[in-house]
Amino acid sequence: MANVGVLGAGSWGTALSVLLHDNGHEVTIWSIDQKEVEMLNTKREHEAKLPGVKLAKEVVITNELNHAINGKDFLVLAVPSIFTRSTARKMSPFVAEGQMIVDVAKGIEEATLMTLSEQIHQEIPQADVAVLSGPSHAEEVGRKLPTTCVIGAKTKKTAEYLQSMFNSRVFRVYTSPDILGIELGGALKNVIALAAGIADGLGYGDNTKAALITRGIAEIARLGMKMGGKLETFTGLTGIGDLIVTCASVHSRNRKAGYLMGQGKSMQEAMDEVNMVVEGVYSAKAAASLAKKYDVPMPIVEEINRILFEGKDPKKAVDDLMLRESKIENSSLLWEKE
Amino acid sequence: MANVGVLGAGSWGTALSVLLHDNGHEVTIWSIDQKEVEMLNTKREHEAKLPGVKLAKEVVITNELNHAINGKDFLVLAVPSIFTRSTARKMSPFVAEGQMIVDVAKGIEEATLMTLSEQIHQEIPQADVAVLSGPSHAEEVGRKLPTTCVIGAKTKKTAEYLQSMFNSRVFRVYTSPDILGIELGGALKNVIALAAGIADGLGYGDNTKAALITRGIAEIARLGMKMGGKLETFTGLTGIGDLIVTCASVHSRNRKAGYLMGQGKSMQEAMDEVNMVVEGVYSAKAAASLAKKYDVPMPIVEEINRILFEGKDPKKAVDDLMLRESKIENSSLLWEKE
Repeated sequence: MANVGVLGAGSWGTALSVLLHDNGHEVTIWSIDQKEVEMLNTKREHEAKLPGVKLAKEVVITNELNHAINGKDFLVLAVPSIFTRSTARKMSPFVAEGQMIVDVAKGIEEATLMTLSEQIHQEIPQADVAVLSGPSHAEEVGRKLPTTCVIGAKTKKTAEYLQSMFNSRVFRVYTSPDILGIELGGALKNVIALAAGIADGLGYGDNTKAALITRGIAEIARLGMKMGGKLETFTGLTGIGDLIVTCASVHSRNRKAGYLMGQGKSMQEAMDEVNMVVEGVYSAKAAASLAKKYDVPMPIVEEINRILFEGKDPKKAVDDLMLRESKIENSSLLWEKE
Repeated sequence: MANVGVLGAGSWGTALSVLLHDNGHEVTIWSIDQKEVEMLNTKREHEAKLPGVKLAKEVVITNELNHAINGKDFLVLAVPSIFTRSTARKMSPFVAEGQMIVDVAKGIEEATLMTLSEQIHQEIPQADVAVLSGPSHAEEVGRKLPTTCVIGAKTKKTAEYLQSMFNSRVFRVYTSPDILGIELGGALKNVIALAAGIADGLGYGDNTKAALITRGIAEIARLGMKMGGKLETFTGLTGIGDLIVTCASVHSRNRKAGYLMGQGKSMQEAMDEVNMVVEGVYSAKAAASLAKKYDVPMPIVEEINRILFEGKDPKKAVDDLMLRESKIENSSLLWEKE
């Protein structure tokens, strides 16, 4: 049994808190929002973000950061990616040498092109930063539906320790050393989800969507491998697996925003209607910057950027993708003889 | 412009005939069924198998095999996989030395464990056998929705020729030398579609299905690579792409049969209710034989076989998959230090 601090009380932080409590651990949840803390302490349920999932009375909910950090065996950082750096900075004074932090958000900082674990490491150099990712809607984890995830960590020891903490009958955890590949797949998938949504909005079918998903992970892998990530990661649970779940979901904000654009709305109209942060819009910019920096062709990312920031007609963009010069599927596979 | 013979007038044969005609080629369709030939000649539409898709009046429909083969620039073999060998045997006397045959069906012969192109090559050794595969519901190709496919051929020359024949504004064709990988992915995906259907029938969510798809293609790739197929193929359009489209489809017979079993029906009840050949049931046996022959662990295939042929409870099977010993995600990725 371990003592765990969960930073952030959104849907994913709440679902993981329930999982960790069910696994027999002592859980303390921190939220920056005093009202949210009071509401959770009273109702023991986050009705707005994860309805129907109860927090046991043993789970402590606090507004004081040091209470959720001091003496904890490991920490789960579950704040939205735009707040990761600022939260890490506030956490740093309380974090012990070698204390484990599992980041469970996904994103790339636009200004620095850094992944979340890189930002956390920069703000809290004394921490042992790991990541948890995979095809895992919080609502389904909250409902205890069978789910798989991957823990990425710097050492096998940390990976296996965290695996044993999260693993359960309904939550199967694999381990991996490829933190960078895990994070790139998680962040860049939202751009492809936008594209899949646009195809749906245009009235295109499953064929088109499967093509965008498959070619999408191929271009994410091309970039990610050039940056140091591993092919096996992009073709695994945190790469194609997470992409599949995002593109299939009717709940995904990214897919929804894409859908609205496919139906003819502008980016701003779509974002207003979704009324939440559409991560893919920011990731699209970051992906384009990375593609340029690492000199990797990313045709889907390029077309999404043209739709988002140059007002290109989505139908024209999809048609242009379909009409690119005929190619071999994978340039590493060639005929031995002509 | 080419002269093309399409053997088989099912939904896929019909959809491809329309595509090839739209591309400016002369198309002759052969069906073994004289009544089907008369119906198509009268109605110019296969109302039962591909409703709403019209065959132009220039498309010739015949019951005479030699009329569809003699002098054709290439042939498209679109009969169901169980009839591939017998049809190839009947075709053989009419096929010229070096005549191209594109097989578009998917399957593995249970008795011999041979792929379809291997069977065709055995029956028509003088032919130049190629394959066409990818995420491509016939209904959507018939409706001209954007679709991607891959031509696998023995030579670059044949691959590029066939690519130029099928490629269109809405049908983007890639080329590949990996015929075996393409065929294995296409045949074995139906076993994973059964598993995905079972998970749906059990009321499990998108997380579970994405896990089964991702881990499913991983075990198909493990087997396929040991047999000589290429990783890039299993992670491409004819591997994961085709698997995604099959597992997402409400029309897939394999997914439907799995769904019914997940809801508590026996294999026989499910097959009776689907009332069509459920390819995955046969592929499951073939996959298990191949796994044994090549000594490759295939846990999902094994559990599906236990459900199908040993009466194992589907819920128990999924739970057993979730509870397998904790593992690293990919055994080729390891930590440099412990």
